[in-house]
Amino acid sequence: MKKGNTIFFKNRPCILSHAAVCGSKEKEGVLGKYADVTLQDDMYGESTYEKAECKMLSAAISLAIKKSGLGEDKIDVLLSGDLLNQIISASFAARDFKFPFLGLYSACSTMSESILLGAALVNAGYVNTAVCATGSHFASAERQYRYPLELGCTRPPQAQWTVTGAGGLVLGRAQKGIKVVNGTMGAVCDFGVTDVNNMGAAMAPAAAQTIISHFNDTETSPEDYDLILTGDLGALGSRILKDLTWEKGYDISSRHVDCGEIVYKVIESEFQGGSGAGCSATVLNSYILTKMNAGLYKRVLFAATGALLSTVSSGQGESIPCISHAVQLEV
Amino acid sequence: MKKGNTIFFKNRPCILSHAAVCGSKEKEGVLGKYADVTLQDDMYGESTYEKAECKMLSAAISLAIKKSGLGEDKIDVLLSGDLLNQIISASFAARDFKFPFLGLYSACSTMSESILLGAALVNAGYVNTAVCATGSHFASAERQYRYPLELGCTRPPQAQWTVTGAGGLVLGRAQKGIKVVNGTMGAVCDFGVTDVNNMGAAMAPAAAQTIISHFNDTETSPEDYDLILTGDLGALGSRILKDLTWEKGYDISSRHVDCGEIVYKVIESEFQGGSGAGCSATVLNSYILTKMNAGLYKRVLFAATGALLSTVSSGQGESIPCISHAVQLEV
Repeated sequence: MKKGNTIFFKNRPCILSHAAVCGSKEKEGVLGKYADVTLQDDMYGESTYEKAECKMLSAAISLAIKKSGLGEDKIDVLLSGDLLNQIISASFAARDFKFPFLGLYSACSTMSESILLGAALVNAGYVNTAVCATGSHFASAERQYRYPLELGCTRPPQAQWTVTGAGGLVLGRAQKGIKVVNGTMGAVCDFGVTDVNNMGAAMAPAAAQTIISHFNDTETSPEDYDLILTGDLGALGSRILKDLTWEKGYDISSRHVDCGEIVYKVIESEFQGGSGAGCSATVLNSYILTKMNAGLYKRVLFAATGALLSTVSSGQGESIPCISHAVQLEV
Repeated sequence: MKKGNTIFFKNRPCILSHAAVCGSKEKEGVLGKYADVTLQDDMYGESTYEKAECKMLSAAISLAIKKSGLGEDKIDVLLSGDLLNQIISASFAARDFKFPFLGLYSACSTMSESILLGAALVNAGYVNTAVCATGSHFASAERQYRYPLELGCTRPPQAQWTVTGAGGLVLGRAQKGIKVVNGTMGAVCDFGVTDVNNMGAAMAPAAAQTIISHFNDTETSPEDYDLILTGDLGALGSRILKDLTWEKGYDISSRHVDCGEIVYKVIESEFQGGSGAGCSATVLNSYILTKMNAGLYKRVLFAATGALLSTVSSGQGESIPCISHAVQLEV
């Protein structure tokens, strides 16, 4: 059931339903058509951005459960985390539900980590259903990681834009639908990048490591996938990923799509594209899974990436350790 | 394999080895005799407290692996988290190792969450070995959650003292030794406590909920356990836990021990006792598991508790959601 760093799920846990909530800027792009809820105002009726972020996550969880047709009493566990200190969005969202909560932190790769662990729990029969969810908010991320919006700081050209949005899905057992076939656990990868405004370059080696490890463990090649989907490498990071995998003998260029690259209409102010835990969470749980259910994509490798830094670690001169967990999805 | 919120591990994953590192203050108590490494200086030769915390965690992981007799190449995954923003101690410690890393966050209940998930992965045959570890540092926690030490702020009488220490264990499959029999996943519990200096009172209801859920799911009662071990409720929180469980018909008073209560020699300056993710991690991975291996305790219910707040959530007037995950250990 395990080879290398990949766990195989022979009972093939299924994605019963999925839901996404996105902000006002995000709805101008692809999410506008595919997200379940699009906000008029990114405050979402709350008094702070952090509370708005939590409310989006809670709404995505509720919606995914509702769309699964199961009652909340049929949900066995929530696996979630987010970017805020002490993952308060996930913890406070979990307070809205009675089922158990397993808190995760894997920065922007939380979506794939939660699917990997959720599928492991469902596949082994430990639980019948698991909700996997995460999200982020541009304004709360800017305040915590960079500068308060009110300062009006300029952004460097290699910067990304944290997605305001949340996505979640319900895993369970079913005959039909999108199955989680296997999951490749990532190891921490640090190439010594210290520029906190250039996450794509920092995370690309972690994505390359996990994707190549996945190909080896599953004895597949890029041609076996309709889509190799990374989380939020952005334009520059995606180029680096393609180079790194090409150097190892894998040409992913014709299959690779990065959620950060497609989430916005690329206009000048987003620079490299979207980022944040909500980036891959919203794109996967709206556009991608909808297209998979419609039969457009049959086999997708979803490898979200996370930069495991904090403002303190960067302030103390540390480089940025990164990670990527991947799950293989099949209709 | 599941009943209520409890997952049963019929292949009974084993604790192959365990290790603990503790600070200079901690070694004056019970940890002085049982911890593997006791620090002379809590800086541990590093330039910052955060780096010292990370080094302790890394040392506990290395030591546990060394004591298991397995090479690092035989370790399949690390499950870890800590109290620092973006769990940098765990992420940077994971950088020292080549095996995959699954980041968790469950505040001070990270130790039991990691054992629960690690045992689930080993029991299902997904991995052969898993390292579960966490830690904390008094000075980094004070700086992040309260005030810099240099300010010399006074502490209220209900305050606890964050333990400087880290603990880890290696799970695998073996005929003999301490087995992880089952794990009870906790749900978030919020009784509306807002006093960030009174974590014991905030966390006690979560511990009560999980422990009672465990008794129901496993059809056991307090008398079936040699020890019911909570993480860091402290003196006041422990009294509240005993009251809450007693109200539900379970008298745990003769079996209950709190790691926070026993970690220090209770002198005036620690008030309610120890706290922090390192509190239960060090006590479990030194004193308790050593005594279990010696046959003193045969069956232990380990229910660490976590307060899922952040300085931002408290600053925005939120109460403190808490959680407790429990694992049943048996020789």
